[in-house]
Amino acid sequence: MSTRATSITPRVACIEAGGTKMVVSIGTTVAEIRDNRHVITTRDPSATTREIQEWFASQNTVGDIDAMGIASFGPLDNVDCRISAFSPKVEWRGWDWLPLASEFVPRDRVGFDTDTNGAAWAESLWGATASSAVSVYLTVGTGIGGGIISSGEILRGLTHSEMGHVMVRRHPEDSFAGACPVHGDCLEGLASGTAIEKRWGVPGTQLAPDHAAWVFESFYLSEMLATVAAIVAPERVILGGGVMDVPGLREESRRRYREAFVTSGHPAIEILAPALGHDSGLLGAFALGRARAQR
Amino acid sequence: MSTRATSITPRVACIEAGGTKMVVSIGTTVAEIRDNRHVITTRDPSATTREIQEWFASQNTVGDIDAMGIASFGPLDNVDCRISAFSPKVEWRGWDWLPLASEFVPRDRVGFDTDTNGAAWAESLWGATASSAVSVYLTVGTGIGGGIISSGEILRGLTHSEMGHVMVRRHPEDSFAGACPVHGDCLEGLASGTAIEKRWGVPGTQLAPDHAAWVFESFYLSEMLATVAAIVAPERVILGGGVMDVPGLREESRRRYREAFVTSGHPAIEILAPALGHDSGLLGAFALGRARAQR
Repeated sequence: MSTRATSITPRVACIEAGGTKMVVSIGTTVAEIRDNRHVITTRDPSATTREIQEWFASQNTVGDIDAMGIASFGPLDNVDCRISAFSPKVEWRGWDWLPLASEFVPRDRVGFDTDTNGAAWAESLWGATASSAVSVYLTVGTGIGGGIISSGEILRGLTHSEMGHVMVRRHPEDSFAGACPVHGDCLEGLASGTAIEKRWGVPGTQLAPDHAAWVFESFYLSEMLATVAAIVAPERVILGGGVMDVPGLREESRRRYREAFVTSGHPAIEILAPALGHDSGLLGAFALGRARAQR
Repeated sequence: MSTRATSITPRVACIEAGGTKMVVSIGTTVAEIRDNRHVITTRDPSATTREIQEWFASQNTVGDIDAMGIASFGPLDNVDCRISAFSPKVEWRGWDWLPLASEFVPRDRVGFDTDTNGAAWAESLWGATASSAVSVYLTVGTGIGGGIISSGEILRGLTHSEMGHVMVRRHPEDSFAGACPVHGDCLEGLASGTAIEKRWGVPGTQLAPDHAAWVFESFYLSEMLATVAAIVAPERVILGGGVMDVPGLREESRRRYREAFVTSGHPAIEILAPALGHDSGLLGAFALGRARAQR
């Protein structure tokens, strides 16, 4: 266990815990973290975390770790470093990251939050929303999530944001029941990658860019942008996640937001792509850990 | 003009600017501000502000003012101390509070924000949301507005929040077109005092507590609570404003939020009445001015 507790450039062990893969790294800078990234397939907790442990242990720098950052799929509990007992990933319900982290650093050197909040923070530190006083990161993938950054910090209230579960106005021609097991037709139930596949019978990657799917999709995303704008009024919103790789979808969502809402008084927020590519979650883990080392 | 620029207990001149009345006061403490409150009927800008000027000038303490705080009806411009050119109050469109304020204090001693953000801040400093890391104040009156307080500060992005203009899911039995001149059936268009009167032909004060109006009202308020909870996850939300004086409405909105949303995973936020009564806006002006004196 490290004694380099007050390092000026803390060495951080990072885990981006996703539902399909875990990305781990160790480093002292953004560049090092990106260079050292290592991917592990997500299986059950014990097999997956054993492989994470082994990878950390195999690194020459493991004795010099000052802090650990974990940006995990959610939902998370408000206590400890636990995944919620209501997580859709049944095997991981109630999973506590702390015992693993404690093998490498003391408890108070472990930074922990959702992958989405981590990504939002990383983008605000080193990416598309640097220099924004208030920004939002919205990720549209298998599920939908979002995080708010205000004055350089993750906004944390009673719990983390669950932006996917906002109840949205229905598109007038949309009769799909929705795919959210809890709410049916919340935003995630209508516009996540899972919803797209359930609605059309094939994954979104197999639908042409002019498929009707994307009319619904940009409708719901622009409705969500309007809701976020009315409540939080961020200067910038990042639309990220796998679904946003569809050509033209971000542009069309931005266009409809402007046409349906900015013309009637909603703020002219900037709607952007992530700047850190697929590293925003991993760099979020770095930011979470680094903040603990600097305490 | 004051030279007491660095007073330990700054004397603040306060204006709570509302659509039907303006409340002014001068004082150094919450108790003094409440004791000295003076009400002026809102008319056109020149007659109204002349009366405000005269009242300030008549006070023995006017020579000792360190700062001025103005909590104004909106929407506001992002520059200066101006009411938006899109304000529904036609006579006040583009009105700039700065010339009036400048008669008493230098420009950098003028604190200015919406009445709702002011009230949200005052409640978080001295009222129902003191000790909350993140809180929201939602006011349901002639219009609907809201403000977010995070880590003791008003959350300000590109502009102030416009929570009334969130597009909400419709109640399945509701066919009312909505009363918002811009959006029709946004939250304000369906649930403001104006909407209630337009929908039922009489003001809400004339509708019995068991009238169907309150079923729709608590539905829409609980939907909004769910949206705010999913995005911001505040520890506490205050439901204030004239419409919330209807007996049982706050309780019923809270009950439906719990039943429809907390049971399916939304956070168990506290839903409260304001603690500062009708002084939250005025004390918001005090907080806004005091922050300028302390710079």
